[in-house]
Amino acid sequence: MSTPSFFKRLIGKFVHPSETARASRTARKAVELCHALLSERGEVSGAALAREVLAEYERLPEAASLPFFDLLVSEFSPDPNEIAGAADAYRDDSSPENLIRLQHAVEPPRQELFRRLNMAPGGTAALIAMRRRVLLSLGTNPHWTGINADLAHLFDSWFNRGFLTLQRIDWHTPAIVLEKLIHYEAVHEITGWNDLRRRLEADRRCFAFFHAALPDEPLIFIEVALTRGISSAAQPLLDPDTPVADPARADCAVFYSITNCQEGLRGISFGNLLIKQVVEELGREFPRIHRYATLSPVPGLCAWLRSVEHEIAQLADGPALLAELARLQAADWPHDPASAIRLQPLLMRLCAYYLLEAKKDGEPVDPVARFHLGNGARLERLNWLANVSTHGMQRSAGLMVNYEYRLAEVEDNHEAFVKEQRIPVSHELRKLARECPLSRQAAEA
Amino acid sequence: MSTPSFFKRLIGKFVHPSETARASRTARKAVELCHALLSERGEVSGAALAREVLAEYERLPEAASLPFFDLLVSEFSPDPNEIAGAADAYRDDSSPENLIRLQHAVEPPRQELFRRLNMAPGGTAALIAMRRRVLLSLGTNPHWTGINADLAHLFDSWFNRGFLTLQRIDWHTPAIVLEKLIHYEAVHEITGWNDLRRRLEADRRCFAFFHAALPDEPLIFIEVALTRGISSAAQPLLDPDTPVADPARADCAVFYSITNCQEGLRGISFGNLLIKQVVEELGREFPRIHRYATLSPVPGLCAWLRSVEHEIAQLADGPALLAELARLQAADWPHDPASAIRLQPLLMRLCAYYLLEAKKDGEPVDPVARFHLGNGARLERLNWLANVSTHGMQRSAGLMVNYEYRLAEVEDNHEAFVKEQRIPVSHELRKLARECPLSRQAAEA
Amino acid sequence: MSTPSFFKRLIGKFVHPSETARASRTARKAVELCHALLSERGEVSGAALAREVLAEYERLPEAASLPFFDLLVSEFSPDPNEIAGAADAYRDDSSPENLIRLQHAVEPPRQELFRRLNMAPGGTAALIAMRRRVLLSLGTNPHWTGINADLAHLFDSWFNRGFLTLQRIDWHTPAIVLEKLIHYEAVHEITGWNDLRRRLEADRRCFAFFHAALPDEPLIFIEVALTRGISSAAQPLLDPDTPVADPARADCAVFYSITNCQEGLRGISFGNLLIKQVVEELGREFPRIHRYATLSPVPGLCAWLRSVEHEIAQLADGPALLAELARLQAADWPHDPASAIRLQPLLMRLCAYYLLEAKKDGEPVDPVARFHLGNGARLERLNWLANVSTHGMQRSAGLMVNYEYRLAEVEDNHEAFVKEQRIPVSHELRKLARECPLSRQAAEA
Amino acid sequence: MSTPSFFKRLIGKFVHPSETARASRTARKAVELCHALLSERGEVSGAALAREVLAEYERLPEAASLPFFDLLVSEFSPDPNEIAGAADAYRDDSSPENLIRLQHAVEPPRQELFRRLNMAPGGTAALIAMRRRVLLSLGTNPHWTGINADLAHLFDSWFNRGFLTLQRIDWHTPAIVLEKLIHYEAVHEITGWNDLRRRLEADRRCFAFFHAALPDEPLIFIEVALTRGISSAAQPLLDPDTPVADPARADCAVFYSITNCQEGLRGISFGNLLIKQVVEELGREFPRIHRYATLSPVPGLCAWLRSVEHEIAQLADGPALLAELARLQAADWPHDPASAIRLQPLLMRLCAYYLLEAKKDGEPVDPVARFHLGNGARLERLNWLANVSTHGMQRSAGLMVNYEYRLAEVEDNHEAFVKEQRIPVSHELRKLARECPLSRQAAEA
Repeated sequence: MSTPSFFKRLIGKFVHPSETARASRTARKAVELCHALLSERGEVSGAALAREVLAEYERLPEAASLPFFDLLVSEFSPDPNEIAGAADAYRDDSSPENLIRLQHAVEPPRQELFRRLNMAPGGTAALIAMRRRVLLSLGTNPHWTGINADLAHLFDSWFNRGFLTLQRIDWHTPAIVLEKLIHYEAVHEITGWNDLRRRLEADRRCFAFFHAALPDEPLIFIEVALTRGISSAAQPLLDPDTPVADPARADCAVFYSITNCQEGLRGISFGNLLIKQVVEELGREFPRIHRYATLSPVPGLCAWLRSVEHEIAQLADGPALLAELARLQAADWPHDPASAIRLQPLLMRLCAYYLLEAKKDGEPVDPVARFHLGNGARLERLNWLANVSTHGMQRSAGLMVNYEYRLAEVEDNHEAFVKEQRIPVSHELRKLARECPLSRQAAEA
Repeated sequence: MSTPSFFKRLIGKFVHPSETARASRTARKAVELCHALLSERGEVSGAALAREVLAEYERLPEAASLPFFDLLVSEFSPDPNEIAGAADAYRDDSSPENLIRLQHAVEPPRQELFRRLNMAPGGTAALIAMRRRVLLSLGTNPHWTGINADLAHLFDSWFNRGFLTLQRIDWHTPAIVLEKLIHYEAVHEITGWNDLRRRLEADRRCFAFFHAALPDEPLIFIEVALTRGISSAAQPLLDPDTPVADPARADCAVFYSITNCQEGLRGISFGNLLIKQVVEELGREFPRIHRYATLSPVPGLCAWLRSVEHEIAQLADGPALLAELARLQAADWPHDPASAIRLQPLLMRLCAYYLLEAKKDGEPVDPVARFHLGNGARLERLNWLANVSTHGMQRSAGLMVNYEYRLAEVEDNHEAFVKEQRIPVSHELRKLARECPLSRQAAEA
Repeated sequence: MSTPSFFKRLIGKFVHPSETARASRTARKAVELCHALLSERGEVSGAALAREVLAEYERLPEAASLPFFDLLVSEFSPDPNEIAGAADAYRDDSSPENLIRLQHAVEPPRQELFRRLNMAPGGTAALIAMRRRVLLSLGTNPHWTGINADLAHLFDSWFNRGFLTLQRIDWHTPAIVLEKLIHYEAVHEITGWNDLRRRLEADRRCFAFFHAALPDEPLIFIEVALTRGISSAAQPLLDPDTPVADPARADCAVFYSITNCQEGLRGISFGNLLIKQVVEELGREFPRIHRYATLSPVPGLCAWLRSVEHEIAQLADGPALLAELARLQAADWPHDPASAIRLQPLLMRLCAYYLLEAKKDGEPVDPVARFHLGNGARLERLNWLANVSTHGMQRSAGLMVNYEYRLAEVEDNHEAFVKEQRIPVSHELRKLARECPLSRQAAEA
Repeated sequence: MSTPSFFKRLIGKFVHPSETARASRTARKAVELCHALLSERGEVSGAALAREVLAEYERLPEAASLPFFDLLVSEFSPDPNEIAGAADAYRDDSSPENLIRLQHAVEPPRQELFRRLNMAPGGTAALIAMRRRVLLSLGTNPHWTGINADLAHLFDSWFNRGFLTLQRIDWHTPAIVLEKLIHYEAVHEITGWNDLRRRLEADRRCFAFFHAALPDEPLIFIEVALTRGISSAAQPLLDPDTPVADPARADCAVFYSITNCQEGLRGISFGNLLIKQVVEELGREFPRIHRYATLSPVPGLCAWLRSVEHEIAQLADGPALLAELARLQAADWPHDPASAIRLQPLLMRLCAYYLLEAKKDGEPVDPVARFHLGNGARLERLNWLANVSTHGMQRSAGLMVNYEYRLAEVEDNHEAFVKEQRIPVSHELRKLARECPLSRQAAEA
């Protein structure tokens, strides 16, 4: 909605000098209001002035946001001399009073500015949008790091789990919220209201975290299918025409989609807590459910396969293997029985190996694996041709994984994973990984 | 409710050595759980472990809270060496990254502990109670200053105005909330449900701020009478038998009581914002209301009178004045016409002088004056025998003040007050102050 | 509240002729509005005109309500000729069309008037109040029977069980509702908010039926104690200082008070349905509770004792028995051990006999017995000195009964009671009744 | 949804004898439960038994509903002898008691049966569905008239305006309700969620009546456009891409769609009340709006044109006129400028004549005219090519009418319309009607 067209952005880069000057003036005006809000006068005029600042900020043309954030850096950062003085005092005498003085000295005035802006109606949403804007351009404006850090610090405090409410989403939910699920869903696109409706039927559950200051905005949501046995493929879950099953007969809960909605809350982690609380809710409602597992993509698989091509080539049967893998180039390989049959053992082994062995800084390369294993889940099962959507084929070669949450083991798993990089894994998956050609190479080496 | 009896407290002071040992052991156990909550394991077990810690903390016997808080100081404070290192790095290179590192270094692990405790059900209320406990004993345990500062810092962030909702309190409000008004009311005691009911009738309004995490707990509330003319006495407002007036005919809104409810949120200021928002609400509902004023006590008056006795004695007519003032000793002086008539001019002048001239660090000595003048109100009128309750006589010599909130002037007033210690005052009150004997002395000097 | 003082009523009876004339004029004016409401014009002006009629009606002075209701009889009753015509037509041809015509003919225009009045805001409450007024004076105005019947017919339809919602009443309930419990409670007076609060603690439950058109008005409510064993005395349940028990350990639910709140809904029965639904609710919340019983007064006992004095006198030991019963005259007989001991066996037997044998038109004379036995409950136990309040002593001689609701037997009990006047009763109570002196007489006769 | 396919219905007509027998047995079983519900036993088992009856009824196969309703007629109708006796008694003595007796006698036991069925969860919805089923086949089963009348009588009482709540429908409304708008909309089909969303934007309002027993079911809803000037065409209102206007600048409210949702509530009139209350709501929210008008179809126009062909043919210029009218046969005549220009004056005049003069039993033939004129609206303006949808062309020849609701005139209009068949009409429309060829004929005659 508010994203500028490519053309505008293009223009944005070659702005005319007088444009720059005007942008600076506009940004300066908004920043003056920020100073006023932080002043004595701001203290007493409170919400009214905050509203004014936000309105001014939201009127800023795209070109003016650059100078605006630059001014937030140059005029609302802490004073290095004051910090130095407070640090010296603390070094001399590490008293609580000196610590508090130092804490105050290191806190940028920006933080108080943001806290005051939050008083305006819609303030919280506006600040989240502001961080989103900062994050978008942080790469080219690394000096905005402090702005990002200040907002992240506030959000971490404000969006504490104690302030979130878990709400069930169903067909009784207001359309304004449901519409956002359609908009935000990041794992398996929701194609429209019919698709959404099927995902909210009696054999499904959908839960979201909400914050009182953002009543119509889900922060994160999860979609669950109540099934007999752990699902091994996405399409039956996603097909709006799949018949509705009797939830009372379900023995598994399959988490088939989890989506963070607020780009501006990046890094504030809710997923771990959401899964845990949803498991509790489901356990209360369905005493017969005894297994909780995800049906997850392996989004990094194909990229990794490309990255190890050279390594595979080095193997004794390397050229043969690469020839097999070349079949993946054909868009419709799953429909070619010969390809599918030949590829299955190889891809399954490579994927198992990828999940268990491909690491970066000691952690799994695959982001989804990192998330669920970090939450204490167990790598349970690999599913062949489990997601044949374009997206699923391009990134995961059609494979999907079940990560299982076994309540009694979650804490131990998490600790072992964080401290010793140990991954809890089923016998079957372990075996697949061992049989991987790359593993053989490792063994031989 | 949870305060120990005097006897128990007495015992608490002369505890047997073995008692001390036991208290230490109990406190240590609770603190171990705190460490667990901060560990990796705590991250994943989340709310469950937080709940456990709180339960353990709430089971702590009175005697164990001392060692518990001591341990919070000794084991959850920041590391001075780490701070020194980060401060040095920042001094060398004041980069955002180094600032962030220093910010992290100065943040006590306690803060993260408190944030995690907040995840437990009822966590916010428990932390507020914890700060209340710390504040109660901070005088004798000044080394707890850091704990207090950490909680205050969190609360300042969590109880941001943007997260508070203003709610009207009336006879449709749940009893569990109304009961708390009776309990908390600090200005004019509510003697029971009948008294409360009268204060919620059609010619009154009551508003409170609430926070989503404390649904049944008012943070602050204000009581308003809708009147014709600014009220000059408390008793008609407080008498449950006063006939209910037609609010549509009111032209004034008189704020006759404002109470902060949460001792543990001391220093987090809501009053200023509450008054402002209530003025807006009333303006919307009653377009005919055009004056907003308080009917406030002068709680520091009698103590100040005692403190200036010596000064008065020095005046030419000092002895005569003191003889007059001695009439205040008689409990029933208001009922003695002679006393009342003689005292009125003298007391009114002294009170006006007190409000305008008695300062400490440049601010009015009287706490209520400090609050309303700091909010931008104007000192409007002094009322004789305006509160003849025991409380009112003992502290304010029966006098009450109207501070008026004139919307158009509030910001200027506030700024002038803060920057130049200038007090906006009516002609009448200014005149009274000038006629005060102490003022004459000043003039002569 | 709105009932006139005795003096006014006295005057009302000897009103001056000119007063009567004025009352007639006022009533006539209100009735003209009623005609307008029933006219074509009324159909389109709808709620607005209904509101006007109600306002006019509520302004009627007491003296004018007599002529007003008289006019409702004389001008809004059906037309006998039209009825005769429709009846003849139906007699000739009992077709559905003729039946419908006859049904329309017998329906008084009053009913449509009341239905239209109901469109006004607060209409339902006003009509209930109107019937209350009619019922109060029906004895002296038997010609108002039709008005009463019309309202009763409407209410029976409007307050169908399908339109009532069962709501739990607790300390979270708005004060405006709780206040009404205090006001209405008819069995064991609620002495104030503290008393009420105790009755809403964790070991109690209170439920009420509400109707959407009367959001703050309970129609009927029931108070339940969750106990170990069936309670045998009222005072422990009513004492605000009785410690709160752990509801999870309860095995019985004791219904110790049930109150119909709306006099104007007399004869519309809710009690039976309320008990049944509350039993279901409690069963869901407390699976360990397996007995549901009342603790009920015997309100007709003392009056009946007086009515059978002559009969007792005829017995062989009649004079001795009457001498014993004379002890009841002493206000404090329960505190005289001799009296209590001697009276107990006699009174218990007489009471058992009364409950089982004293009948009128085949039904128990005692109204409470009639209610619970009619609902399918069983006469379980008689409790000695179970309610020693003034009220309890005067009407029930301190005795109370437990009626037990055994779910599996309720339907059979009800049917046997209605069709065969059979009363389900415990062995113990049956034995007491047999031992009653009056029973011996019966046996001997 | 539950309507059987044509094939099934066909089969239903030629059912095998054994099928008939089975259907009779099933219906008999359901009816036995109905008898039980009306018995003593039914009184005490209440909602539970009602639920059972409904379940049994809903399980009835289509074929069994015929014998079921037949049994409702034969076994739950009133007793003619009892009626005759009560009628005689009333004829002899028209006392209130005898009237009440007669009223009871003429009330079919069915009514009490329906009242008891209503106690089941979902009972009200089930009874509405039952009447829908009865209405569907009433033509071929005229003896069911009594069932229909009983249900209509109950619904008229239950759905009294005093029990309905007006609710605004917007994008915050639960999807389960919005979905029903899409399903029910009868005037201008809602093509999907996007279309619906546009109709709920800031420059639109949608209101519905709800009843507490049917929380997710709108009874009737109305769609309003806030416009500058009275709309003269449907398409701009219906186009999802029409830009959203600023509602604060609107001076008219145009009711462009009003839909009764519940077929089973046929004849219970809500529309009149809904329009009136919506006008009040809008007046409160938008003080600048001063005209309220519909944009309505003329659904009977084309059928009427066909019916007067013969009459037109008799006119002097009859053949020429018919030749013009024959242009309407061409599907795309609006796109043929010649046709449109030639047709406009003729069709406009005929339509005006139709609306003002075409009567049946003294009332306008056009159902929409009958409805709005009966509500007191005024015939304001005819709009050419105002609805070019297929539906709009086929029935209204593309014409639409604005009926205006002028609050000050509504009551007079209604009365004049009902009593004197007088239609309030604008000068312009009156003139068009007078210029109609058929009118000339009348004048000449």
